[in-house]
Amino acid sequence: MRESELLKHIYARSQDLGGATIVGPGDDAAVIDAGGGPLVWTVDQLVEGRHYDASTPLDLIARKAVARSISDIAAMASRPIAGLATGALRAGFEDADALFDAMAAWAKRWGAPLVGGDIAVVNGPTVLTVAVLGAPATARGCPLRSEARVGQGVYVTGALGGSLASGRHLRFEPRVEEAAELAKALGDRLGAMIDLSDGLGRDAGRIASASGVRIEIDGASVPRAAGVADARAAASDGEDYELLFTASGEVPERLGAEGLAVTRLGRIVEGSGCVITIGGREVDAEELGWDHQS
Amino acid sequence: MRESELLKHIYARSQDLGGATIVGPGDDAAVIDAGGGPLVWTVDQLVEGRHYDASTPLDLIARKAVARSISDIAAMASRPIAGLATGALRAGFEDADALFDAMAAWAKRWGAPLVGGDIAVVNGPTVLTVAVLGAPATARGCPLRSEARVGQGVYVTGALGGSLASGRHLRFEPRVEEAAELAKALGDRLGAMIDLSDGLGRDAGRIASASGVRIEIDGASVPRAAGVADARAAASDGEDYELLFTASGEVPERLGAEGLAVTRLGRIVEGSGCVITIGGREVDAEELGWDHQS
Repeated sequence: MRESELLKHIYARSQDLGGATIVGPGDDAAVIDAGGGPLVWTVDQLVEGRHYDASTPLDLIARKAVARSISDIAAMASRPIAGLATGALRAGFEDADALFDAMAAWAKRWGAPLVGGDIAVVNGPTVLTVAVLGAPATARGCPLRSEARVGQGVYVTGALGGSLASGRHLRFEPRVEEAAELAKALGDRLGAMIDLSDGLGRDAGRIASASGVRIEIDGASVPRAAGVADARAAASDGEDYELLFTASGEVPERLGAEGLAVTRLGRIVEGSGCVITIGGREVDAEELGWDHQS
Repeated sequence: MRESELLKHIYARSQDLGGATIVGPGDDAAVIDAGGGPLVWTVDQLVEGRHYDASTPLDLIARKAVARSISDIAAMASRPIAGLATGALRAGFEDADALFDAMAAWAKRWGAPLVGGDIAVVNGPTVLTVAVLGAPATARGCPLRSEARVGQGVYVTGALGGSLASGRHLRFEPRVEEAAELAKALGDRLGAMIDLSDGLGRDAGRIASASGVRIEIDGASVPRAAGVADARAAASDGEDYELLFTASGEVPERLGAEGLAVTRLGRIVEGSGCVITIGGREVDAEELGWDHQS
């Protein structure tokens, strides 16, 4: 069974959660309000042999475990507050202290000091989880996947593709500052936002589906990372961890201290689905992107 | 390496977390303040073959995965608000939907609707994690492990021992209501509190150590669950998930709708460590309790 199907089941089940829940499963993070204003909350797993291999340096394993959840918080235009980490460590793994130290250091660097956690030993691959709590960076609140509107443009930060091949998936910088800057600059003109984990095609399709709109992307405009052969690869490779967002009106061309590029990819129209025009041919986004196959 | 040593390392590293952190690792849950008042936050792992065996009914696996984290929130005299669940599921496990449905149902029953999560498939034992966010039930706030004071009495809810042998470890009821009632009834007279997961001896030792006091327990007064042979077994067996707390003055004899018994076990004196008098002999608590050995 594909994990995306399992997750769909979780999402479908999560209607009417009541209580403090504002946004349940299905977005980059949940939004809850415990009485002190909205908080965003997410968790992700990092699995040995799947998200990294045994030869990966410890510090980069730790970095990726933390960065993935921080990136989800960024996609909600939110700032991290604190984190929790667990490790189910492969029996015989000797560097637990160093691994948790490294996770703590990365988490603190990104504003989410690890305030708790748990360790177990298993006869299987190491599995790390990092849960991060955050809060919206601006009064705009969280740009949900369901907030794309007809007439908005579609934009992406950075350059896409080749993340796994180049090792960028281990060293990416979560776009916390850039997302906050976008929310501040655009306010209500900022529509939907998502961090690209499963490829531009698939993740754009998620915005289209959640918002009930159609997304049209011009493949030629997709910014490609160094060494990425064509638009199809750039739109298909996963683990970019860049921001994909929709907005109306003027959009900053660069973001953050490093001047991260923002590129317009296409537009939101009435209809459904997501198509990317590549070499004059419309490709359904469902054919692109990748899935964590069991 | 023993997991308790690994966790000690995490605790030791967690000084000066800054930011929103009020209480870092080392208590039943962390306490943070994101600007809207204190929140408590915990995560726990449930490992197949360790915390349950393959023959355990799905609903009881789900129940225990959730209940352990809810019990940590209870030990902070707090009420659950929301939860996140992850599953690293053994390849070939076919009941992911049912398992997550059951976790969601238990989490909702205990006031912590699951607002998000993640699923992966692994070539190893299934590992479930449940993170729960909560808030203090009363203005007393969280009774920390460090808040036992000389002159206070030491109390426990329910009856101890035999949890694994009897299967109670799969069916225990987290003491959320009872803890809230205690905090309301006792206010500042409530000292330290902990939920008993590693056995009375070991967990009482944790309060003594965190508070810088000595705990003296009369073994004859330890309430024993049905079939538990003696005080040593009652004080050694793990996974009771009852509340151990310290308090001054009068303490309710029964708590909650079910009239859960509260039993006085001993007292807090100056010094260090925890001793349990069994058969006229003082036994060091360090000799009791159990550890998750790798």
